[in-house]
Amino acid sequence: MFQSFDSTSDPSLASPRIAALRAWLAANGLDGFFVPRADEHQGEYVPARAARLKWLTGFSGSAGVALVLADRAVIFVDGRYTLQVRQETDPAIFTYDNLVENPPSVWIGDNLESGTRLGFDPWLHTTGETDTLKKAAKKAGVDLVPLDRNPVDAVWEDQPAPPVTPVELHPLAFAGELARDKLARLAAAIEAEGATHAVLTDPSSIAWAFNIRGNDVPHTPLALGFAILAADGSHLLFMDKAKFSREVEAYLTQLAEPHQPDEFEAAVAALARKGARIALDPVLAAEKLRMLVEDNGGTVVSAPDPARIPRAAKNKAELDGSRAAHRRDGAAVAAMLCWLDRHRPGGTDEIRAVEALEDFRRRAGEETQMPLRDVSFETISGSGPNGAVIHYRVSRATNRKLGDGELFLLDSGAQYQDGTTDITRTIPIGKPSGEMRQRYTLVLKGLIDISILRFPAGTRGSDIDALARVALWRHGLDYAHGTGHGVGSYLAVHEGPQRIAKTGMERLREGMILSNEPGYYKEGHYGIRVENLIVVTPAEPIDGGEIAMHGFETLTLAPFDRRMIVPELLLPEERDWLDAYHARVLAEIGPMVDGEVLKWLEKACAPLTPEA
Amino acid sequence: MFQSFDSTSDPSLASPRIAALRAWLAANGLDGFFVPRADEHQGEYVPARAARLKWLTGFSGSAGVALVLADRAVIFVDGRYTLQVRQETDPAIFTYDNLVENPPSVWIGDNLESGTRLGFDPWLHTTGETDTLKKAAKKAGVDLVPLDRNPVDAVWEDQPAPPVTPVELHPLAFAGELARDKLARLAAAIEAEGATHAVLTDPSSIAWAFNIRGNDVPHTPLALGFAILAADGSHLLFMDKAKFSREVEAYLTQLAEPHQPDEFEAAVAALARKGARIALDPVLAAEKLRMLVEDNGGTVVSAPDPARIPRAAKNKAELDGSRAAHRRDGAAVAAMLCWLDRHRPGGTDEIRAVEALEDFRRRAGEETQMPLRDVSFETISGSGPNGAVIHYRVSRATNRKLGDGELFLLDSGAQYQDGTTDITRTIPIGKPSGEMRQRYTLVLKGLIDISILRFPAGTRGSDIDALARVALWRHGLDYAHGTGHGVGSYLAVHEGPQRIAKTGMERLREGMILSNEPGYYKEGHYGIRVENLIVVTPAEPIDGGEIAMHGFETLTLAPFDRRMIVPELLLPEERDWLDAYHARVLAEIGPMVDGEVLKWLEKACAPLTPEA
Repeated sequence: MFQSFDSTSDPSLASPRIAALRAWLAANGLDGFFVPRADEHQGEYVPARAARLKWLTGFSGSAGVALVLADRAVIFVDGRYTLQVRQETDPAIFTYDNLVENPPSVWIGDNLESGTRLGFDPWLHTTGETDTLKKAAKKAGVDLVPLDRNPVDAVWEDQPAPPVTPVELHPLAFAGELARDKLARLAAAIEAEGATHAVLTDPSSIAWAFNIRGNDVPHTPLALGFAILAADGSHLLFMDKAKFSREVEAYLTQLAEPHQPDEFEAAVAALARKGARIALDPVLAAEKLRMLVEDNGGTVVSAPDPARIPRAAKNKAELDGSRAAHRRDGAAVAAMLCWLDRHRPGGTDEIRAVEALEDFRRRAGEETQMPLRDVSFETISGSGPNGAVIHYRVSRATNRKLGDGELFLLDSGAQYQDGTTDITRTIPIGKPSGEMRQRYTLVLKGLIDISILRFPAGTRGSDIDALARVALWRHGLDYAHGTGHGVGSYLAVHEGPQRIAKTGMERLREGMILSNEPGYYKEGHYGIRVENLIVVTPAEPIDGGEIAMHGFETLTLAPFDRRMIVPELLLPEERDWLDAYHARVLAEIGPMVDGEVLKWLEKACAPLTPEA
Repeated sequence: MFQSFDSTSDPSLASPRIAALRAWLAANGLDGFFVPRADEHQGEYVPARAARLKWLTGFSGSAGVALVLADRAVIFVDGRYTLQVRQETDPAIFTYDNLVENPPSVWIGDNLESGTRLGFDPWLHTTGETDTLKKAAKKAGVDLVPLDRNPVDAVWEDQPAPPVTPVELHPLAFAGELARDKLARLAAAIEAEGATHAVLTDPSSIAWAFNIRGNDVPHTPLALGFAILAADGSHLLFMDKAKFSREVEAYLTQLAEPHQPDEFEAAVAALARKGARIALDPVLAAEKLRMLVEDNGGTVVSAPDPARIPRAAKNKAELDGSRAAHRRDGAAVAAMLCWLDRHRPGGTDEIRAVEALEDFRRRAGEETQMPLRDVSFETISGSGPNGAVIHYRVSRATNRKLGDGELFLLDSGAQYQDGTTDITRTIPIGKPSGEMRQRYTLVLKGLIDISILRFPAGTRGSDIDALARVALWRHGLDYAHGTGHGVGSYLAVHEGPQRIAKTGMERLREGMILSNEPGYYKEGHYGIRVENLIVVTPAEPIDGGEIAMHGFETLTLAPFDRRMIVPELLLPEERDWLDAYHARVLAEIGPMVDGEVLKWLEKACAPLTPEA
C-alpha cells in the first residue's frame, strides 16, 4: 500500500520540543521564530527531514506556519485545517489563527511590541513572502533576523537525513523532447528575460528539464535538488550523487556540471561575485538565494521559473502517455465502481474502499505492463458526513461504513510512468434522496459546461471558473474551492501555474492538463464532487465561425452514476455530451475489462432516458 | 442639438504648430516632448483648452499620445482609432503606433539613443504611468524631464481659457445623502488608509462628494477642480469662484474652504511641509502632485480615490432616480423605434436618426418636467458597414442612408438630473438575413444570460464576462470589447471602477450600475450590439438554497427587435426572461406613450412564438 490509515500525530510530544526550541532562542537573543510547513523547494510534499512543523507541533497538514515566542505559540492554518490542527496539537501550548484572514504579517502588527526580535530561516521563506513579512515587521518595529542555522534542526536530535533515492531517466517515449533541447529553450528564455542565469528550486522543473524522476517525497516522483541554468548553456546541477547510478551520472554530466548540494550556496555566491544577473521566481525562490546574490554583488532578476509554462503545456508524447494512463486508470475505476455496487449498504467501509481501489490500480498496471508507481495523493474516501470534508483523509479513528441512503465520495489518483491521474466520483449507497440527486445534477452540469466550452486564445482560468458554478448559483449553492488545478506529466498532481479558479490568471494554452471538479458540500451530511482531467486542445476553426477556438479534450474515462442524475435538469446539449462521453468510455474501457465488470460497464454507459 | 456632425479636424493645421513646438523644444534644450490626450483630471472628456493633442495633430479621439521629436513625430493610439488617426492627421508629419502593443515605454527603448532628453508635463501623466515611463527611460538611458510649463501652451496663441460654467447643487432628492455625511465617510476612510489627506483629482468624485454638478466638459455634468480632503475634516476645494452663485458659494463654504485653482499647488506643498501623509490614486493623480508632496517633505500614500467605491454603489434615491430616468428614456426610445419602422428602407439616414432621437428625448423630458440636460455621449448611429465600427461617430462625410437589408446600430444615452442612461438597439432595415438573425440571437443570449445570473458576494466583473460570450464562442465568434462599463448617477456614462470585462477586478456590490452590452461585428458588413443598463441587487436568499445571492435588476426599458430573434436558439429560461422583460416594458412604458407609438409598443412587446 502506498498509503496508511494511522493517525500520525501525537500532541503530547510537542511540550519538550517547544521547551528546547525556546531555550535555544533565549540563548541566542531571539524572542521568537517562524516554523513554516514549507521546505526550500516549496512543494506540496516535504521529506521527513523537513517536516519541522509536524515534528515540533504535531500538525500534519500540507500548509501552515507556527510562530513560537517565549510565552506563547501560534499556529496559522487555512480553512481546510481549522479542525485538524486542534485535533493534532496541544491547546495548552498553542493558539490558532487563520493563515488567510489573519496571516503572520498582520498578526505581528497587532500582537508584538516594538523591538521584538523574530528569527526566520531564509531557506524556508520565498522572496515574495519575505517582502510581505519585512514590510509588516518594519511597520511594527519588529526586527526580522535571518538565521544561518535552523533552530529546529539544532534541537531535533534524531532528525532524519535528507532522502537519497535513486534517480531514474524519464524515457523519451514519455517525455517527448530531449533534455538538451529543453535546456536550450530555457537558456534562450533566460537570455530573453535579460538574465545570465536562472535558479531552479522547484524539483518539478528540474525533473521536467532534465527528464529525470526520483522518489524523495511521497506520491510525487521527484528528486530533490537545485539547478542553476545559464543563458550560455553552462548549467549546474546540485543533487546528491549517491542518487545516481553510473549510467544516470553519465547522462546528467552531458547536460550539466553535477555538484553536491552543499556546494550550491558557494556556487550562487561565486556567480554573483562575477556580476551575474540571476533570475529568481518570487513565489518559489528562497529569500536566502536573494541574500546570496545581493550580498555578493550580483543582481536579482525577478521572473517566473522559466520551466513552468513549457512544463505545463504538454507535448504529443506526454498527452499520448496521459491518454494511455487514463484508459488503464479507467479500467481500474470501473472495476472499483462495480465492486462498490456489489456490496450492500453497510457492507464495506472507507478504508476497505481505498485498499480495493489501490489493488485494482495495481492489477491494471500489471496487466498493461505499466506498473502503478504510487498513488498521486492520499485517497479521499468519504462516506456520509465525511464526504463533506473537502480534504478528508480516512484514518482508523474516522473510518465509517458506507451506510444506506448515504453518498460516498471517492477522489483518488495514480502515478504511472506514462501519466498522472486524478478522478473523483460520487456514488449513492442505497437510494439517494431527491435533494442529493438535484444537487449532484447541478454539479454535473458545471463539469459538462466546462467540458463543452470553446474559447479563444488568451482566455485565462479565472475567466471560465464561474461557468462551472452558474447552475449552482441559481439555486443559492456554491463550493468553496477552485474548479480545477493543473496536473503534471508523471509529476505533481497539483501543478502550477494553470488553474481554473478565481486566482487562475495564467492563460490556458494548448496541451495544459487541468482538473475539472465542481462540487457541493452539505456540512454534517454529505459531499458531492465529480472530477475529470481535461486537456486544452489546439485552437481550431468552427464551421461558420471566424475565430479559431480552443476547447477541452476529456482524458478521464469512467461513468458518472446515473442513479444520481435528474435528466430533466440537463440541457439537450449537456445530455448529448454525457451520452457521447459514456459511449466513449464503453468503447475505450470495454475492451480492457471483462465478465462482471464489462456487464456493469455496459449498463453504466447506456444512454440516459428521461424519467417517466 | 447636443451633438454636431461636422468633421472637426483639419490635418493641414498641424505643420506650423509642430514647427513652433519643435523650435520651442530646441530653444529649451529638449529632444522631444509627450503630448497626451489627457488633462490633469484624466477624464473621458477634456475642455477645449486642454485638447492639446487635437490642436497639435488633428487627432480627435478620446485616447492617445503623441511623441514629438526633432525629426519625427509618432502618435500612439489603440485599436479603436487606427483608421481615424490616419484620416485626421497628416502622414507627411506623423507616423503611427499601437498604444497597447507598442506603447511609448516600449517604443523609446527601441528607437531612441542614450542621452536623448524628453520633456513631459507632469500634470498630464499619472504617477503610475510615470513610473512605467521612468523605468523604460532609465533602461534606455533617456532623460525624462518634467517641465514647469507645457510647451504646447507656450506656442498655442489662441488657446481657449479654462471653462467657467455655473455650478449647481445636486438636489438631495437625487443624491440621497447629504454632502457633509459623504465627506465624513471619506474622512474616516482616509484615516483608515493611514493618511492625513487625500487629493481628489477626478471631478466626478468631487461632484459626488459635494453634491454639485457643472457643465465644463461635453456630455458629463462636471465642474472641473480639485479637492484636498482631510482625515480631520478640514477640507479644501479648489475651483474657480466665478462658477459659484452666492448661494452655491455659501453652501460649499459650509463643507470646505474654497480656494482659487491657482492656490492648489501651494496648498499641497504647504501640507507636505507640515509632514502630511497624502493619499494619491496611482491611476488618477498627476505625477506633479507626487513631486509636490515629496519635494516638500510629505509622504505619498498610494491608495485608490476614496470616493470611487461609495460613488459607484448607488443609494436608494439614486436608483429611484435612475429608474425614473429609464422610464422616460424608454418612452423616447420607443417613439424612436416606431419612427424608424415608419420609414421605408432608404427613407432616412444616420444623421436624421440622431436628430430624431435627441428630439424624442427632449420631448420626453419636457413632458415629465425633467428636461434633457445633454446626451451622455455622442450617439453611435451606424447603418450597414458603419455599424461594425465599434466607436463610430457619424459626420456629414460618412452619413449613410438606412438601406434595405441592412442592420442599423443605434447606441445612445441621455443626461437627466435624475439619472444617466445608455442604451443600444440593433434594428433591421427591410428583411434581415439568416446569418444576421442567428448572430443577433447569439448576442442577445449573452445579454440575457448576464441578466438572469445570480452570484455570491465577492464575484468580480472579470468572473462573469465570459458568460456573455459562451454562445458566440461556441460558433467561433466573439467581440473585441468588454461586456459592461460602470455608469454614474447624473455623472459620467463611463464610470469606474466597476466593469464586466477581463480587466474588471473590482467586486460587484449592491447598487453598482453597469452596462450589459455584448455585440458582434462583421467588418465591412454590419454590426450588432444590444445594451441594457443593469444594477446589482442586494444578496437575497433563494428558495432551497444556502447562500444569499446577488443578481441584476434591468433598468433599461425598450423592446428588442423580434424580427432579429430566432426563438429556437433561446433556452426556455432565456425566452421566459425575454417575454417577462417585454411585458414589463409594456407595463411601464405603455402609460407614457399613446397613439401610433403605443400600438407599435404593444406589438413589439408581445410574447415570442416559436417559428413555424
